[in-house]
Amino acid sequence: MFTQINYPSRLDYAAICQRPALEQGQLDALISDVFRQVRSKGDQALRELTATYEKREITDILYTAAEIEDLASKTDIALQKAIDHAYANIYAFHAAQKLVPNKIEVNPGVVCWQKATGIDKVGIYIPGGTAPLFSTVLMLAIPARIAECQEVVLCTPATHPAIFYAAKLCGVTKMAKIGGSQAIAALSLGTESVPKVYKIFGPGNQYVTAAKMYANRLGTAIDMPAGPSEVAVYADHTANPAYIASDLLSQAEHGADSQVILISTSSDIVEKTITEIKIQLAELPRKDLAEKALANSKFILVNTSAEAIDLLNEYAAEHLILACDDAEEFSGYIRNAGSIFLGNYTPESAGDYASGTNHTLPTNGFARAYSGVNLDSFTKKITLQSISKQGLEQLGKTIIDMAEAESLQAHANAVKIRIN
Amino acid sequence: MFTQINYPSRLDYAAICQRPALEQGQLDALISDVFRQVRSKGDQALRELTATYEKREITDILYTAAEIEDLASKTDIALQKAIDHAYANIYAFHAAQKLVPNKIEVNPGVVCWQKATGIDKVGIYIPGGTAPLFSTVLMLAIPARIAECQEVVLCTPATHPAIFYAAKLCGVTKMAKIGGSQAIAALSLGTESVPKVYKIFGPGNQYVTAAKMYANRLGTAIDMPAGPSEVAVYADHTANPAYIASDLLSQAEHGADSQVILISTSSDIVEKTITEIKIQLAELPRKDLAEKALANSKFILVNTSAEAIDLLNEYAAEHLILACDDAEEFSGYIRNAGSIFLGNYTPESAGDYASGTNHTLPTNGFARAYSGVNLDSFTKKITLQSISKQGLEQLGKTIIDMAEAESLQAHANAVKIRIN
Repeated sequence: MFTQINYPSRLDYAAICQRPALEQGQLDALISDVFRQVRSKGDQALRELTATYEKREITDILYTAAEIEDLASKTDIALQKAIDHAYANIYAFHAAQKLVPNKIEVNPGVVCWQKATGIDKVGIYIPGGTAPLFSTVLMLAIPARIAECQEVVLCTPATHPAIFYAAKLCGVTKMAKIGGSQAIAALSLGTESVPKVYKIFGPGNQYVTAAKMYANRLGTAIDMPAGPSEVAVYADHTANPAYIASDLLSQAEHGADSQVILISTSSDIVEKTITEIKIQLAELPRKDLAEKALANSKFILVNTSAEAIDLLNEYAAEHLILACDDAEEFSGYIRNAGSIFLGNYTPESAGDYASGTNHTLPTNGFARAYSGVNLDSFTKKITLQSISKQGLEQLGKTIIDMAEAESLQAHANAVKIRIN
Repeated sequence: MFTQINYPSRLDYAAICQRPALEQGQLDALISDVFRQVRSKGDQALRELTATYEKREITDILYTAAEIEDLASKTDIALQKAIDHAYANIYAFHAAQKLVPNKIEVNPGVVCWQKATGIDKVGIYIPGGTAPLFSTVLMLAIPARIAECQEVVLCTPATHPAIFYAAKLCGVTKMAKIGGSQAIAALSLGTESVPKVYKIFGPGNQYVTAAKMYANRLGTAIDMPAGPSEVAVYADHTANPAYIASDLLSQAEHGADSQVILISTSSDIVEKTITEIKIQLAELPRKDLAEKALANSKFILVNTSAEAIDLLNEYAAEHLILACDDAEEFSGYIRNAGSIFLGNYTPESAGDYASGTNHTLPTNGFARAYSGVNLDSFTKKITLQSISKQGLEQLGKTIIDMAEAESLQAHANAVKIRIN
């Protein structure tokens, strides 16, 4: 069930870091047809597509405030308290990401700075399916609120009360009863009921993913490219095999395509972790899914922590758990990862739900170039500059010389006319 | 030559804000073939494609350090000084964007923070053509250096000495003699000479743009979607028509598809600006291009500054010049723009070259959802968290309740096993 790789050479790293190939464009014809229908028939297309693909009848596309209130109130009280706690932590961490004012006088009389403004209209997709992802509502709608996005439209085919409780708590402005690629088409194009948004966030199946890529090509921004969820654990001799096993399993239970990797300098830890996994797996309700994911897992023994660092930077894990001595110092060598969990008492599930960090993270090696969702994801940074007449007189020659060398005379003239 | 629109109603805004339709996917077959050749034949494909499309013979793909040194040294001394000055300003403004440490103890024993790491390998494309864009080398390679990107690969078919001077100054690590879609394919796929990079930046013609979109679908990040350059000027009665005319012309000279808009509360200013444009245009070397762009320009008279704000926020200009009384206060109402230029002595060309802000900005309304290039563009923000045993004991119930409500038992177990 487990692939064990002992002491790989640098040449093996590329193969170890290979993710399953993602399907590209195979669904394009289908998605393009869904977009065409939504573009031409608006809400009516959403009703028809929901009936066809989901066997659900919907009349109104949007939930009313009373419906949201009613569903939200059905949330178990203990769960409400848990969500409130997570909300406070996620809010605190994301609010701390606000742009620090950076007005600087670059030259005398030449002042430049940035300001961040919320993206006016954003869409959040929350899938239906086996796990009701109210935690993802928090992870996306909280930074949207902090960014002061004016319209936050949440589309979901799911009806779990906690999704409505979380949405209400976060100030989501509209909720739509739609799912799948038609929900993404509605957010991208707009319909009578669903506002056209400028950026779409959230997880989904292959249809939703393909629809987000399609929307992106039409000009709607998206959070990031998608791929199966993954965890890499680095463990030295100080790690606890039972804890590691529980982390690997919490990733494996997400789905059969989940990626699970253990890298260790200790063969003892690797063996004991495998034993622990077998014990803990037996008890899991989602045992079948986890078992399938474990079939693709890799347990890799390396000679030194330096080798582990190289391999981890090449792999660029979505979640990276450092179960090792002085994990914080070790993390200083990590250049590529979505989110890093330090030490024996920091399980991935803390960040998945409640510590405050975001759980929407780059998979599939995208952590080499992409950040996870953070406050920036819901804002644009606009640059501003203010130059005095004296400032322009000082800077003018530089601008004129460069503009003329680029053969852009009108650019030079815009300075000359002001200072001559 | 000028379209004048007087006192439009809110219903007209959508039409006013319409940009020319961008071609989507028409070049896909050609681009796909270029990528296929580069994938299968590497450097040899680059030689063949350069001979076919550009009628240039190249043997070595990369410039040697001696070649770069030699070309750079041919840069005019006055221009070197200008580039050095711009370098210092752009460096200072982008260095001020470094992530401020934000380690926070969200709950007792639950500490979360972000760190920014440079994208290890980035590619910069600088087109050939009529204007040798050494300024764009500065705008992209300076933040790459501040971000500590380890490999910065610059591809350009241009041979203007200043491009080499700027690249050397910025610490570009490799320069390749290639252009067009084959350069983008090389950066995205890698060849014997050109390293595969994780993110590609820079302007280009329709082939380059289509190739960047194609690379993006293959998993390479790109700076932002492209469109024709544009400026919007807001002018009240305090503005100077000659200055406005010079700014509109400096945008218009970029190319026939440039977008130029003037919004004003003063009919007198609009009329005088049109007169000034005619006078200044006559003297321009790129008069023909500018005239074509002006044919699509719009001069819009509005009743109030509040109407102007609405229209400007809907338009979401790449460059926005505020030539009005108390421009800084006015800018507080602007939610959507790439870069804002305040007052009568802040021409767009200051930001294009030397004030310190970046000139790679979102066109085509993309400023509603995208930031211009800034230090973030060359980094990823990784979240980290460190939880103590006591911290996890406090946070544990929240995580467990949420995980169990999402039917993810292994997520709950990862906490239970640590605190029970």
